[in-house]
Amino acid sequence: MENATLYTRVRPAGGEPTSVLVRDGRIQALGGAAPEGVPVVDGGGALLLPGLIDAHAHLDKTMYGMPWYRNEVGPRLIDKIENERAEKTRLGIDPYRQSARQLVMSIADGTSHVRSHVDVDTDIGLGAIEGVMRAREQYRDQIDVEIVAFPQSGLLIRPGTLELMDEALRMGAEVVGGLDPAGMDRDPKGHLDAIFGLADKHGKPIDIHLHEAGELGAFSMQMTIDRVLALGMQGKVTLSHSFCLGMPDTQAVQALTEGLLEAGVHIMTTGSASRPVPNVARLRQAGVTVCTGNDGMRDTWGPYGKPDMLERTMLVGLRNNFRRDDELAMALDVATYGNARVMQLADYGLAPGCHADFVLVDAETVAEAIVARPVRKLVVKRGRVVARDGRALAEAP
Amino acid sequence: MENATLYTRVRPAGGEPTSVLVRDGRIQALGGAAPEGVPVVDGGGALLLPGLIDAHAHLDKTMYGMPWYRNEVGPRLIDKIENERAEKTRLGIDPYRQSARQLVMSIADGTSHVRSHVDVDTDIGLGAIEGVMRAREQYRDQIDVEIVAFPQSGLLIRPGTLELMDEALRMGAEVVGGLDPAGMDRDPKGHLDAIFGLADKHGKPIDIHLHEAGELGAFSMQMTIDRVLALGMQGKVTLSHSFCLGMPDTQAVQALTEGLLEAGVHIMTTGSASRPVPNVARLRQAGVTVCTGNDGMRDTWGPYGKPDMLERTMLVGLRNNFRRDDELAMALDVATYGNARVMQLADYGLAPGCHADFVLVDAETVAEAIVARPVRKLVVKRGRVVARDGRALAEAP
Repeated sequence: MENATLYTRVRPAGGEPTSVLVRDGRIQALGGAAPEGVPVVDGGGALLLPGLIDAHAHLDKTMYGMPWYRNEVGPRLIDKIENERAEKTRLGIDPYRQSARQLVMSIADGTSHVRSHVDVDTDIGLGAIEGVMRAREQYRDQIDVEIVAFPQSGLLIRPGTLELMDEALRMGAEVVGGLDPAGMDRDPKGHLDAIFGLADKHGKPIDIHLHEAGELGAFSMQMTIDRVLALGMQGKVTLSHSFCLGMPDTQAVQALTEGLLEAGVHIMTTGSASRPVPNVARLRQAGVTVCTGNDGMRDTWGPYGKPDMLERTMLVGLRNNFRRDDELAMALDVATYGNARVMQLADYGLAPGCHADFVLVDAETVAEAIVARPVRKLVVKRGRVVARDGRALAEAP
Repeated sequence: MENATLYTRVRPAGGEPTSVLVRDGRIQALGGAAPEGVPVVDGGGALLLPGLIDAHAHLDKTMYGMPWYRNEVGPRLIDKIENERAEKTRLGIDPYRQSARQLVMSIADGTSHVRSHVDVDTDIGLGAIEGVMRAREQYRDQIDVEIVAFPQSGLLIRPGTLELMDEALRMGAEVVGGLDPAGMDRDPKGHLDAIFGLADKHGKPIDIHLHEAGELGAFSMQMTIDRVLALGMQGKVTLSHSFCLGMPDTQAVQALTEGLLEAGVHIMTTGSASRPVPNVARLRQAGVTVCTGNDGMRDTWGPYGKPDMLERTMLVGLRNNFRRDDELAMALDVATYGNARVMQLADYGLAPGCHADFVLVDAETVAEAIVARPVRKLVVKRGRVVARDGRALAEAP
């Protein structure tokens, strides 16, 4: 049997030890012995997790590997956006190089797929899209990258951006991005018309950054839900952050939740500790698909973050006061199967027939893997080892 | 010159490289050359930080090194307290062994001082106090431990506890603990009378766990402030958690803040992501001393936590939305000088004359040390190396 490996003594989700037969990049069988001539890798009793997924990254923004950026930025959203646009050029934040660096760190931490928002604006044009596409091509055998064309500096308030977004989608960006329809563009109807128009034209899903809190966010969320229902885009729209779902008015949140469910709109939360946030358990109980990601890391917005999705899962758990093992298992489900559902990944998981994207870590249980975040012992992507003992085999520029 | 070492090329708080001359356990000089015969240790440009302090630990509770504890505990405070009291015996959570394990991890992570609350109740009696005292004695040259006699299961509602608290203080516990005067004992006046009585009898400071949120917590906080002023105990009382300071009523919070300042009452916050929390920047701006600690870690209450005070500082920063370098420096000041002030540590810091308790880490700036949490390169306690490259020289049982 060619192109095959048997991984023995691995414990799926912390259960009993078993074996995984990988062939031609897919999981062929669980629990069997090695067919003749197939090499055996001893998992040593490690926990087996499906490939971790980062469903909300900003690969083009990170400053990892560059000199420390002294953050003296003002408190408003617009301060951070304008500061970033100016600093990008001044500091030479190269989208290709920086994406590549973050991808290599993500590979080392066991991430198999990334959805990255990538800035499109009238200063940088399509330069960031091109840079991330170049990095994605370079590491295509180690990690899958999905690109969201993201109008970070506004869509309607910066004429020319819509045409650039259109071009980014033509070039191969997979998702239409959006940003605070009311708060940023000051024209929620116009903003939503524009991005739903792009999605319709290119036949692509939508992922909108919705920072708007409280009743303003609820208004934009409801407008989005209405459009999804009117246009039949159920299952194809994600609202990232959605701080409005953390507002104190539980009746309003309940009504929005029912709307999200009906429209099949997904919610992305990073578990931000300093903002009101969606309640993960309640959304999931209602049937809404929840996904998560690391968001920006070590960039001009803020210094925090590692590409480690187990650390992100811990932060989501801390924010949601998840203490029980079943609650932490739910958080990991968000960071794996929830993310896969939102990104519509085919054949994701640990069942026979799935792509052989998985991670081995030394931990007794799923909960321990999340809170201890051990070095990844082995990371496998489509059947090939791509990282070992916390180090990616690929190199970063 | 005997008992001396010169550490060269170290950068205090990330500034210019300098040298530190250590002699007889104290910092003797900064910036000089090596006197004849004094061994030189090359710091290699590492960041120099004063010993990190954990001002709120529960050394007797951790389950590190034991089999994974599957958490299926209910959501109320009393569920966690009663579950813990039962599980302690069933699982054999030995206070000496577990304290020792956590202390060795703390040493490895650069912690020079710990204030630990230690359970006193009518089941365990003084067993936990004795166990932590034994561990403290064993590691006395590597780390300093201060013990708070803590009535975790209630003071007045469990007759006999007050007498045990009295005995714990007589045995050498340094601080009188308390817990939710209204919420736990259902008798705020009685609870506060009892612990202020103990403090007066033994001449010791007070540290009260105040989980009570909103107006109830504000009531207990104000009662505490009133007693401090009436009894002249300014500077000697800490209110841990103080979730009531995170309530939406900013006028009430402002009034409490003025009371805290007048009474010299300190506030301990862990930066809990799932509860309302005190605003660190506003309290400090008002002149209130803020301290922080890791709280319980990997125990029957919850699975989270590492003994790493840089990670705690990051969590405080995330919760308070600290993004700027000056804000992160403030967070580290809380975890070092703020904690030292609350624990009334003499000769703490990096100035000549201070105890030589310090940490070297490979980081460009203080902010980077907090967000990246690098392995501690070298940890020095009273002039002696106690940990290197993330490993304590002492061993745990």
